[in-house]
Amino acid sequence: MKEYIEANKERFFDELFSLLRIPSVSSLDEHKPDMMRCAQRLTELLKEAGADHAEIYPTSGHPVVFASRTVDPSLSTVLVYGHYDVQPVDPIELWNSDPFEPEIRDGAIYARGANDDKGQLFMHVKAFEYLSRTGKLRHNVKFILEGEEEIGSPSLAAWARDHKDLLKADIILVSDTTMISEQVPSINCGMRGLSYVEIKVTGPDKDLHSGHYGGAVANPVNVLCDIVSSLIDRDGHITVKGFYDDVIELSAEDRAKLARAPFDPDEYKKFLNIAEVKGEKGYTTLERTGIRPCLDVNGIWGGYTGEGAKTVLPSEAHAKISMRLVPDQDSEKITELFEKHIRSIAPPYVKVDVKRYHGGNGFLIPISSPAYQAASRAMTEVYGTEPVPSRGGGSIPILADLQKILGIDPLLMGFGLERDTIHSPNESYLLSQFFKGLESIILFYQYY
Amino acid sequence: MKEYIEANKERFFDELFSLLRIPSVSSLDEHKPDMMRCAQRLTELLKEAGADHAEIYPTSGHPVVFASRTVDPSLSTVLVYGHYDVQPVDPIELWNSDPFEPEIRDGAIYARGANDDKGQLFMHVKAFEYLSRTGKLRHNVKFILEGEEEIGSPSLAAWARDHKDLLKADIILVSDTTMISEQVPSINCGMRGLSYVEIKVTGPDKDLHSGHYGGAVANPVNVLCDIVSSLIDRDGHITVKGFYDDVIELSAEDRAKLARAPFDPDEYKKFLNIAEVKGEKGYTTLERTGIRPCLDVNGIWGGYTGEGAKTVLPSEAHAKISMRLVPDQDSEKITELFEKHIRSIAPPYVKVDVKRYHGGNGFLIPISSPAYQAASRAMTEVYGTEPVPSRGGGSIPILADLQKILGIDPLLMGFGLERDTIHSPNESYLLSQFFKGLESIILFYQYY
Repeated sequence: MKEYIEANKERFFDELFSLLRIPSVSSLDEHKPDMMRCAQRLTELLKEAGADHAEIYPTSGHPVVFASRTVDPSLSTVLVYGHYDVQPVDPIELWNSDPFEPEIRDGAIYARGANDDKGQLFMHVKAFEYLSRTGKLRHNVKFILEGEEEIGSPSLAAWARDHKDLLKADIILVSDTTMISEQVPSINCGMRGLSYVEIKVTGPDKDLHSGHYGGAVANPVNVLCDIVSSLIDRDGHITVKGFYDDVIELSAEDRAKLARAPFDPDEYKKFLNIAEVKGEKGYTTLERTGIRPCLDVNGIWGGYTGEGAKTVLPSEAHAKISMRLVPDQDSEKITELFEKHIRSIAPPYVKVDVKRYHGGNGFLIPISSPAYQAASRAMTEVYGTEPVPSRGGGSIPILADLQKILGIDPLLMGFGLERDTIHSPNESYLLSQFFKGLESIILFYQYY
Repeated sequence: MKEYIEANKERFFDELFSLLRIPSVSSLDEHKPDMMRCAQRLTELLKEAGADHAEIYPTSGHPVVFASRTVDPSLSTVLVYGHYDVQPVDPIELWNSDPFEPEIRDGAIYARGANDDKGQLFMHVKAFEYLSRTGKLRHNVKFILEGEEEIGSPSLAAWARDHKDLLKADIILVSDTTMISEQVPSINCGMRGLSYVEIKVTGPDKDLHSGHYGGAVANPVNVLCDIVSSLIDRDGHITVKGFYDDVIELSAEDRAKLARAPFDPDEYKKFLNIAEVKGEKGYTTLERTGIRPCLDVNGIWGGYTGEGAKTVLPSEAHAKISMRLVPDQDSEKITELFEKHIRSIAPPYVKVDVKRYHGGNGFLIPISSPAYQAASRAMTEVYGTEPVPSRGGGSIPILADLQKILGIDPLLMGFGLERDTIHSPNESYLLSQFFKGLESIILFYQYY
């Protein structure tokens, strides 16, 4: 295995870079043609890696890539999920190199998507290639690669419902998450769900001179700040009525188990360059991202944001807000509660509208499952230490949907690290993690 | 007078339009050459109108235009103040015609600067032309036209200090404000001061994935909303410590006088398309803009503001904030108090910086002064009704400075109307107000 990887690694990089060079930003219309180019490149790579069949399926959004190799229908089937779309690159001025011209620096690949998720899904393509070409493949393998994960997978659930037979499998295998550190490997056994909304506050129907009207007319930006500020109380609790109704409190025992994961608060603060952490009262940092829901403004804008001073009382103010949910919370119900809450607190002197974006539920998978056990054994061999079961703070809402639609558990073998700053400038992926991930995936097939 | 205006009005428009076509946006560096072009065009127009002398004075910022005509040193001197710079045009997509290609529609001139202040200062140039050319000028006249009013006049006060003799006069005459309505003319006898600041909240030193960190790391946008929201309490009072220390409460008698100004709350709300007004408890709408200070966010931004959803926990959040001050409040002292207050409430889990922009003090002028009385008589003749003394909510901080430096009171004969939406898209100036203003100014010289 190691010889094969060593002998082929330059080709691996060339192939991965050909994917990274395609700016497949799913949220921006201008990149629509890039989405198709990226899907096409993936089908080529999957066929070259050994797929019997690789096809692009159109959806109402960006296309889905499906590929498969059937070794023997009686063998068990692994369904690999990944996504080829990436986040926007703003603020572009903070990148040290072109986000769409990958560079290897200091032992890492730097590019948008280097980790999330092109780099991680590519390990699966190469693990599959190795097993196919060396005659060691003892599973049927299917790939389902979507182009809409970063915008909430609006098309894939419906597509999966229409192609249930095609997607039949025993396990969904995913590398789209992080591990605690290279020294402390971990496997995600749960992810948070997501509700994403946008608030628009409208005051006067035109921008006004803040001198002539200031003090007498409600300023939509000030009102938006009041609303946002009221959503979280002093103890870090979200004030949306009914928000915590379905949140199950973990037992002291379960919390103790999670607390075993190594965590250095000083390193964490140093990495982020912050003096203090902040979150819900009564919970640790790992609990705050792992087992508790939260609410964040992802973007806010209104009025004059250019250089210098403009004395305007703006007509509108906007905020994009996301709520991360724990597995028992239903994304649609939470979005409903949020909208209702906002309507109930909207003051009479402005108009407040809520727009719904995508959302999805969280999920939990059993540590006792054969797939988890196989992954744990593979990673123990590669990393020299047993991986810790962890709870991821992020959301891959589509996995909860696929679990429900297909009746298959997802297994999250994520090889990203915090340092990779996915979704931010200078996203990267350590070469050492790429190769360890690749080896772990190959061994997973051996032990599963 | 009327015949002269009628015979020359097409030329007046051509000349005014030549000024309006120059995009003299003082806050944007790219328009620096336009500032000089606009200053040059003004000197041409002032010479043509009858100035003995018209000159462009460089400053550390945009140039100052000074022009004068000395009829007889023993006569009293009128110093006309105006500004040739304009506000930016964003959001440009809301304009119905090119902001720098003036158009006459429905009895009004539409262009950036049509009113503020090119349109209003141009009435003074034409009044001066009429008096000069018809041999009726019985005052010495000086013009001081700056290019930095919209960015807080950073250079003019120092320039005025250096040119005190040049600026010697008996009254500063200004048209850069509004009147209550065409049916209810008014003269501003006081303006609010201004303190303008920008708050920057920095959390982690990079944008983070809101799923991985949300709930555990302070979000700078949420913190900024908390800070902004805390600046005004439920009763509409500003919470900055010491903010009201120098605010003098008006007597019941003075408040009653101000309350005589006609004001229709329903029309006001209808004009702005709002269901309710909002402001400081215990004060009327006119009091809230006239005799009370206020605080407004003029711009806010942070995180992802593009289309779609991005799950980012941003590194930074920003807000531009202005405070309108009453005459007894000192702008610099208030800015100091604001900064101190923000430092005192900044939480430990973020960094908070305050940047100071320009500011200026408010002022009051006596109704009993000869200049006010002459203006009142002139406007009574033109409008057929006596103008109401009013208090302007806006700020022309440089006037308070000039008053202090030169020891001369300013008189604010403003002919703008609310409908003109200055600082906003589709700024306009009614032709009827342009001509009534021009006539009023000519008569002012007659009665002063």
